[in-house]
Amino acid sequence: MSKTGAQGYDPRAFKALTFHDATARFREAADTPRAYLERCLETIAEREPVVKAFVSLNEASARAAADASAGRWKAGRPLSAIDGMPVGIKDLLETKDMPTEMGCKAYRGNFPKRDNPAVWALRQAGAVILGKTVTAELGGAEPGPTRNPFDTTRTPGGSSSGSAAAVAARMLPAAIGTQVGGSIIRPAGFCGNVALKPTQGGINRGERQATSMSTHGVHAGSIEDMWQVAIEIAERAGGDRGSAGLFGPPRAPAAHKPERLIVLETSGWPELDASSKSAFERVLRELESKGVRLIRRASHPLVEKLEAAIADAADICSAITAWENRWSHRNLVDQSPDGVSERAKGVLARAEAMSLSDYRAALIEREAAQLSHARIAPLADAAITLACPGPAPQWSNAAATPRPTGDPVFNYPSSMLFAPAVTVPLMGVGGLPVGVQLMGQQHEDARVTAMARWLLQSVPPVVVD
Amino acid sequence: MSKTGAQGYDPRAFKALTFHDATARFREAADTPRAYLERCLETIAEREPVVKAFVSLNEASARAAADASAGRWKAGRPLSAIDGMPVGIKDLLETKDMPTEMGCKAYRGNFPKRDNPAVWALRQAGAVILGKTVTAELGGAEPGPTRNPFDTTRTPGGSSSGSAAAVAARMLPAAIGTQVGGSIIRPAGFCGNVALKPTQGGINRGERQATSMSTHGVHAGSIEDMWQVAIEIAERAGGDRGSAGLFGPPRAPAAHKPERLIVLETSGWPELDASSKSAFERVLRELESKGVRLIRRASHPLVEKLEAAIADAADICSAITAWENRWSHRNLVDQSPDGVSERAKGVLARAEAMSLSDYRAALIEREAAQLSHARIAPLADAAITLACPGPAPQWSNAAATPRPTGDPVFNYPSSMLFAPAVTVPLMGVGGLPVGVQLMGQQHEDARVTAMARWLLQSVPPVVVD
Repeated sequence: MSKTGAQGYDPRAFKALTFHDATARFREAADTPRAYLERCLETIAEREPVVKAFVSLNEASARAAADASAGRWKAGRPLSAIDGMPVGIKDLLETKDMPTEMGCKAYRGNFPKRDNPAVWALRQAGAVILGKTVTAELGGAEPGPTRNPFDTTRTPGGSSSGSAAAVAARMLPAAIGTQVGGSIIRPAGFCGNVALKPTQGGINRGERQATSMSTHGVHAGSIEDMWQVAIEIAERAGGDRGSAGLFGPPRAPAAHKPERLIVLETSGWPELDASSKSAFERVLRELESKGVRLIRRASHPLVEKLEAAIADAADICSAITAWENRWSHRNLVDQSPDGVSERAKGVLARAEAMSLSDYRAALIEREAAQLSHARIAPLADAAITLACPGPAPQWSNAAATPRPTGDPVFNYPSSMLFAPAVTVPLMGVGGLPVGVQLMGQQHEDARVTAMARWLLQSVPPVVVD
Repeated sequence: MSKTGAQGYDPRAFKALTFHDATARFREAADTPRAYLERCLETIAEREPVVKAFVSLNEASARAAADASAGRWKAGRPLSAIDGMPVGIKDLLETKDMPTEMGCKAYRGNFPKRDNPAVWALRQAGAVILGKTVTAELGGAEPGPTRNPFDTTRTPGGSSSGSAAAVAARMLPAAIGTQVGGSIIRPAGFCGNVALKPTQGGINRGERQATSMSTHGVHAGSIEDMWQVAIEIAERAGGDRGSAGLFGPPRAPAAHKPERLIVLETSGWPELDASSKSAFERVLRELESKGVRLIRRASHPLVEKLEAAIADAADICSAITAWENRWSHRNLVDQSPDGVSERAKGVLARAEAMSLSDYRAALIEREAAQLSHARIAPLADAAITLACPGPAPQWSNAAATPRPTGDPVFNYPSSMLFAPAVTVPLMGVGGLPVGVQLMGQQHEDARVTAMARWLLQSVPPVVVD
């Protein structure tokens, strides 16, 4: 591998870093969590100077945690299947041993010395909290410094930029992301990760997340690790207040072949580049050749209804999120006028021009779309679409670009519908990853994961120029 | 009035401080918001040394705000009907100009210099933020120093102790409280206030409230002021994230006579003292004499079903709240082992003994009770019960008492049901207030307020020894 420039991506050849298949050797002491960690640190030393996935690393604490884990594995008493797994934490989540700066100048040095419930749960499960990963400012669109490991002239996507890039660069087997609009599924799509954006409320966000459609989720190199991280957290810390939390088996579900899939175009379809569209159509033909029946908007009125209900998802999600962040961001700007980007100030200005009626109208549209989505449940096992609108865009002129971390156009629907979504790395377009996305009904996280696993096992990756 | 000891309470004689009837004189400049404020400050100077309702006062800022308000009234351009109203803020809500210590040693000196959305909205409406009022520790049961203004050997109730006492002592026409279990309705009942605990989510709590059944609400001396404060906040800051927020008219609704009321006994009935029970039965007989039909558990199976569904409300609410506060309180105890009471540590220990299944079971019971409550909607206009289990208990031995701020037994139901509730000061028992409580269906806040107004106008207060 070159130390600096583009690596190139071929989904047939790329092997992501995995953890689930390392633990058998921990038991035999043929390998140890500490040695696993040191391999991650070597990769980080090699790639981080260019990829810039991390805000901070806590190597000393990670080494101590890995050594403790090694002892538990040796004694045959691991705390969980992810005991010893090095994990990265998106820098929106508080951690007691590292600052939480949220990609925002106003939060520089912010160090509340407490663990988000998801971080607490990871520690309880024995995971090694290695570092904080770069987030776009406040989980929005103002990018951090992170580059796409497969072409460092490009964005890794956002706002979970560092988590997606760290996994793609094989620095980590898994990292925590968060999604309000498209901040887990899209960067995973740009970076060749698998990723889970759970049903809304699936993983406990703790006390300081202001929006009604943000979820914690997981970037990983494998379905097994992705599921394991999610369920180990949920079993210990549950879901958001008032939510039952993520449901599913204690190990990643076996591959499950869908009988019928709804092909969702979303409002991203007309803007999609021809290469990505042709790659996706090849995936669809492959599915049909395997006997999966596809249902598209032209072939069923309820699918057309759902497409219509999510056509304005971008505006609706943006309005809801802007309104809900309004007071928090107003306080931030008042306290630190130079500590917040012009981009974030622009969103705040739009929020402050909204009325309560505007917000209520957006909530009603969101609820109507959710009803429309529930209505298609009997038609198919899941919906399939793209995870991102083609390959990651070029990095240049970030400040002048409306969406420097890429367009969440394919992601707003699952966010708005509170629906579980999984990124499936099945396509290479011009040497870059373009993810496929599976979306299920609310609380079908495990089922969608099982179908994603089947896709990865059964559909040959598609490569186009 | 004596400066120190018991004042005694007679609901027929007591005149609470009101604001709505002062503003006509502001227009004519026969009175001014500044003069109104000074009268409040005089009362505070007289009563506060014993009542201890406030954690902090910001007199300079309040005087400046009152002067600005006076100018607006004089110019005929008040920002709202509560422009110039002195308001107290429960010290769980962040305020940019006063510390927020949450009645907890670990938060001593905590001063994040930002406004909770409800505080922001009050300022936008021209209200004068005069001070922070005492809360029991973290909104729980460990009491602050506040005394009941009608008998300073007794508690004012909690956790909104300072807000209830400040209104009862005529220091303020209104103050903000919050309720998770019974923290608005109960202290209002002990203190002779009117108070609104809105439908869950009715008033925006901002980003830092951890539980799924906490609401901001209003203590006031009159229905008019109570409603006005609530609706002015909701119009500007809306409800919680994802909630439509409080609905209702821009001025307090006119009195509305209920045709039928469900009498809810709750699990508090068997423990209620004979005097309070006889006073409440007299209120009920008065209602019947005015043609209001009463439906009790023995007379309708759906009411009996609801009584059964809320019989364990105390345990269910306590379990849900403890689980939801678990990570936040664990962090606090880890950071400041001596900064949290033994009582709060006990609740944390119980939370840490809970499993996700326990929490999910409690959520299901809460949802089932809500369904049971929705089913009684066609039977009656609202439910009536007590706001508190008799007069406020004696203050002595606070540390050794399981519930030093009184038992929320009559309050858990409305909290659990996410239902709007209003305290109506209709009874004096042994020289102390005992409130009546009206509870409506979710989002019927305005309707319940209208019926509370009718009760106050039409039912003669009941006095027993």
